[in-house]
Amino acid sequence: MAHVVVQNPPRTPAPIVDALAAYGVATVHEAQGRTGLLKPRIRPIWAGAHIAGVAVTVSVPPGDNWMLHVAVEQCRPGDIMVVAPTSFSDAGYFGELLATALTHRGVRGLVIDAGCRDVAELERMGFPVWSACVSATGTVKETLGSVNVPIVCAGQIVDPGDVVVADADGVVVVPRADAGQVLAASQAREEKEAISRKRYAAGELSLDVSDMRAALAAKGLTYR
Amino acid sequence: MAHVVVQNPPRTPAPIVDALAAYGVATVHEAQGRTGLLKPRIRPIWAGAHIAGVAVTVSVPPGDNWMLHVAVEQCRPGDIMVVAPTSFSDAGYFGELLATALTHRGVRGLVIDAGCRDVAELERMGFPVWSACVSATGTVKETLGSVNVPIVCAGQIVDPGDVVVADADGVVVVPRADAGQVLAASQAREEKEAISRKRYAAGELSLDVSDMRAALAAKGLTYR
Amino acid sequence: MAHVVVQNPPRTPAPIVDALAAYGVATVHEAQGRTGLLKPRIRPIWAGAHIAGVAVTVSVPPGDNWMLHVAVEQCRPGDIMVVAPTSFSDAGYFGELLATALTHRGVRGLVIDAGCRDVAELERMGFPVWSACVSATGTVKETLGSVNVPIVCAGQIVDPGDVVVADADGVVVVPRADAGQVLAASQAREEKEAISRKRYAAGELSLDVSDMRAALAAKGLTYR
Amino acid sequence: MAHVVVQNPPRTPAPIVDALAAYGVATVHEAQGRTGLLKPRIRPIWAGAHIAGVAVTVSVPPGDNWMLHVAVEQCRPGDIMVVAPTSFSDAGYFGELLATALTHRGVRGLVIDAGCRDVAELERMGFPVWSACVSATGTVKETLGSVNVPIVCAGQIVDPGDVVVADADGVVVVPRADAGQVLAASQAREEKEAISRKRYAAGELSLDVSDMRAALAAKGLTYR
Amino acid sequence: MAHVVVQNPPRTPAPIVDALAAYGVATVHEAQGRTGLLKPRIRPIWAGAHIAGVAVTVSVPPGDNWMLHVAVEQCRPGDIMVVAPTSFSDAGYFGELLATALTHRGVRGLVIDAGCRDVAELERMGFPVWSACVSATGTVKETLGSVNVPIVCAGQIVDPGDVVVADADGVVVVPRADAGQVLAASQAREEKEAISRKRYAAGELSLDVSDMRAALAAKGLTYR
Amino acid sequence: MAHVVVQNPPRTPAPIVDALAAYGVATVHEAQGRTGLLKPRIRPIWAGAHIAGVAVTVSVPPGDNWMLHVAVEQCRPGDIMVVAPTSFSDAGYFGELLATALTHRGVRGLVIDAGCRDVAELERMGFPVWSACVSATGTVKETLGSVNVPIVCAGQIVDPGDVVVADADGVVVVPRADAGQVLAASQAREEKEAISRKRYAAGELSLDVSDMRAALAAKGLTYR
Repeated sequence: MAHVVVQNPPRTPAPIVDALAAYGVATVHEAQGRTGLLKPRIRPIWAGAHIAGVAVTVSVPPGDNWMLHVAVEQCRPGDIMVVAPTSFSDAGYFGELLATALTHRGVRGLVIDAGCRDVAELERMGFPVWSACVSATGTVKETLGSVNVPIVCAGQIVDPGDVVVADADGVVVVPRADAGQVLAASQAREEKEAISRKRYAAGELSLDVSDMRAALAAKGLTYR
Repeated sequence: MAHVVVQNPPRTPAPIVDALAAYGVATVHEAQGRTGLLKPRIRPIWAGAHIAGVAVTVSVPPGDNWMLHVAVEQCRPGDIMVVAPTSFSDAGYFGELLATALTHRGVRGLVIDAGCRDVAELERMGFPVWSACVSATGTVKETLGSVNVPIVCAGQIVDPGDVVVADADGVVVVPRADAGQVLAASQAREEKEAISRKRYAAGELSLDVSDMRAALAAKGLTYR
Repeated sequence: MAHVVVQNPPRTPAPIVDALAAYGVATVHEAQGRTGLLKPRIRPIWAGAHIAGVAVTVSVPPGDNWMLHVAVEQCRPGDIMVVAPTSFSDAGYFGELLATALTHRGVRGLVIDAGCRDVAELERMGFPVWSACVSATGTVKETLGSVNVPIVCAGQIVDPGDVVVADADGVVVVPRADAGQVLAASQAREEKEAISRKRYAAGELSLDVSDMRAALAAKGLTYR
Repeated sequence: MAHVVVQNPPRTPAPIVDALAAYGVATVHEAQGRTGLLKPRIRPIWAGAHIAGVAVTVSVPPGDNWMLHVAVEQCRPGDIMVVAPTSFSDAGYFGELLATALTHRGVRGLVIDAGCRDVAELERMGFPVWSACVSATGTVKETLGSVNVPIVCAGQIVDPGDVVVADADGVVVVPRADAGQVLAASQAREEKEAISRKRYAAGELSLDVSDMRAALAAKGLTYR
Repeated sequence: MAHVVVQNPPRTPAPIVDALAAYGVATVHEAQGRTGLLKPRIRPIWAGAHIAGVAVTVSVPPGDNWMLHVAVEQCRPGDIMVVAPTSFSDAGYFGELLATALTHRGVRGLVIDAGCRDVAELERMGFPVWSACVSATGTVKETLGSVNVPIVCAGQIVDPGDVVVADADGVVVVPRADAGQVLAASQAREEKEAISRKRYAAGELSLDVSDMRAALAAKGLTYR
Repeated sequence: MAHVVVQNPPRTPAPIVDALAAYGVATVHEAQGRTGLLKPRIRPIWAGAHIAGVAVTVSVPPGDNWMLHVAVEQCRPGDIMVVAPTSFSDAGYFGELLATALTHRGVRGLVIDAGCRDVAELERMGFPVWSACVSATGTVKETLGSVNVPIVCAGQIVDPGDVVVADADGVVVVPRADAGQVLAASQAREEKEAISRKRYAAGELSLDVSDMRAALAAKGLTYR
């Protein structure tokens, strides 16, 4: 129960992380067996960003952003900071000053199950954030938390070093140990979907493409 | 309680449907006596769409999108698919593959009291969706529902063949039997509002335009 | 408990109000000691507006917008109308007709802890609104409220004549008596932040800039 | 869209209604194919009541309880009043005075998708209420609604004359036309469950009683 | 914006406070013109308490209960402690140790727009609490707030020295200056309701007792 | 991503589990450094239960309770079943039939981040449940989940074999590896609180007992 900063936890290799950025959150979520998706309350503060990066995890007290300052030092190029309060908070933990510091370190974005502020400035800077709300509520710097320990963020376990993929649909986390396999599965899924897309665009029905009619009838579906 | 697909239910005539698209959701809602509005949790996933169409209704189990695939076949040009889960769900029932199929069939959009995914792709395709949330959560295909039966979607009864109007303000449903009369009332309301708009823009007060001062005083309003 | 309209309440001087418009909501909130912020459910209906103005307060019954019509007459150039229902309401109290009237009077925007409609038209008009939701639900004109009395709006006391600042982060209220001092404090804060921004952009850490390491160690933070 | 009071709508026969009172809400909901259940926000204001009755439906404006006074006159012994506001309201529409009037008329209880007050008195009187919240917020008597028209209450269509069953689990509505068949199905379900209960109490597993092992294995469930 | 403890603020006279305890929250709320009611999220943690007392107000940071310890010293017999966090918190600010201290000082109860814990012990002690939630989440003691300043608690302004009445229906605040008049109005209302109760119990309808039929017809209500 | 049932995972020794039942949820939560508490939405369905047991974890699809039937077989005397859906569900996964089966196996209770039904029967049986809601909504048996894998339940990681303590305040989970130490810390905390309780009951102030006055003054607290 001590408050710790874990330095240099094992990280998913950069080539896998960067390759995952080519896939959408929905694809990655499906590719890993419909797991890893953060609750839909986590939304982008501005439209258009799509990133993948390595999780630097931060456990914070409600209304206290001290540990974000501690966590900055632990970040490397290609990282995404992932923040979860230990109990509900809608305070504004993060704004453009911290984004300036993270940008300098090559951090790709922030995911936080709490509030974010300075959202107009963050959009101007091009720094992407996914948060539970927009809130200017100030925070204090009084109580410790931890950096790079396992956290629960918006319903999902996030371990330091995991891959985080975020786009307009939300945020998905890929466990480090599974990342290579999930990358392959994402690619396979996308190829399969490309074929379906072409068939649907040509007017074929999924009822036929995926051969659902018999199963539906067996369950008792009736046409009137 | 059987699960059914009703084929070819009676539909509101296309000219009435298309004419209603000229009016905003607020106007139509007022024109039919302040009824028919879906709860405000139903929001467009991208900005700028304004459509009217004929409801194809789909009742689905929570977390199961099988019936959407069944419903595609029932859709015709000018339709809007309207989906309601039988109990709360924030799963992502709908994405760009289904939108591809609906686009082929001339469907104008989707209204769903649950989640939608692939929202960036849907915006690129120009396929409009109004949903309760954005969510990539995958669904299964295991349990039946029904197509073209009366449903309750976000607090409103929607019958197949009703008109659905959707814009930046949300979604309103117009019962098939009332559609002609509501169209006329919408037109009348808009004409009346055009006059008010002109008077307000010129600086007249609604207190005077609508003659409210006596009624306010009678109720006891005091100026200090 | 009488329903009253207070005419010509004391107002924060225009130069102070206008100068506060140069500062963001987060800055003003911090500058006045982390107070005055409306709950984060209050969001802009369209992106890009940043205003400051003098509060004309309106207390309204749930689902009844009669008093907004009364309040229009009390508004002057530079004002912001601030509306709070006496119990929860998600009705659409405000739309483009009222916005037309307010625009004529030089009102800068609306803050409402309830619903707003005609949001596409309001964006086209450039009339900014911060609301708890978008909702087309019609309202009645039957029951009195009050204008220019102290209200609680989204968790904050707003007195007529106070300053309201609103931007992409939300809405903050500055008590009239404190406005001059908050303006000075906002300016001071922004200057201080400009220095921090430069240092963070150059790669310095807040841990060092703000000398946090000793305090963190004293609290027991451990590095592994 | 006129506001109407429908007098003497067809009612489910009393023997069927009274017989349904022997079954719990969960049983009736299952017996009619997992339909008819009001959203779980509808909770009893005091513990221990379990009733069935005939629905007298009331559609009310937000914050206005005038139509409840109108509806009292339409109630007969064995009825349950079912109230739904046309948009969200947490006002306290109902208290002990109205309960006194309903008690005189032999009404068995109230279901309301809004607030109820005087809950201590209602418990003392033994008048059962299922509501969305407890709230003392006063209402006005200014705007019309309707009595004994189809309404949507907490997500379900309720027609006048339908059966309502309510207990500690919530509230379920049974369409008038289905009531006899649902009664039979409820009885059948309860008999079947009595057998399962005995077997489970004796230590048999549902895996075996319901023969699930093969289906689980076929889906791919693995034991480690 | 300094953090202060105001000692010995003016208090509503005890005889008025104690007399108000004879009336329910709904009665007092109506008697003062339908004002003063805290949001319905504020609920008793155990059933059966009905109290009135003088407000000692406490403004607290989210997740920090230090000021409750400060406030204990300011409490006198007959008081009710009223606590509001400056932003949302569901932490458990209060438990049986603080209740022990308050009981010693003759405090009658607690109202808090946040969490409470040790609820079984509090019921055993007979110490009544109205809170937004039950939550064991621990709090810190790091950041100041204020005692006996005006606060907004669950949507209402509460000034130190005001009367607070709380029962099964929730919590209402009566401004000190109005307390005598509200007491008289409560008594008047109760007498009037006693007459209505008798008439309703005898089968008279409020439609007739309050002479509503003509007004309803004038508004257009139709009987079918 | 396979669906698995882990049999015989390591379990916290029974003497430690049983000894933890002597302490309340708040005490255990504090004793382990303010960690492990499930979100306050998890509430007991009936009052008075206070249990500790070993977690059998169940990951379930939304609206599908098949895996609960699988999990029954994995339960032993002294266990508590802990259930989390993979996405939000308010369905009624659990009722008296499953409780009958669990009672036979000596299971002490259920914790579920979803709905529970048959709550009157469960109270009569004395089977305690902590759930996110009461809901009779039926579930299907179509899709696999897993048993005795790590889950996130109401915001907390729960591993099979962990200790779960539940009482009127909610639910706390104690990691298996920490259980002995948390037991000792709980005992120590309770002893310390007993002393404080005695002093507060005698009228001493926590301001003095815990020596807070200097720290408050140093932070700037002012008395007026």
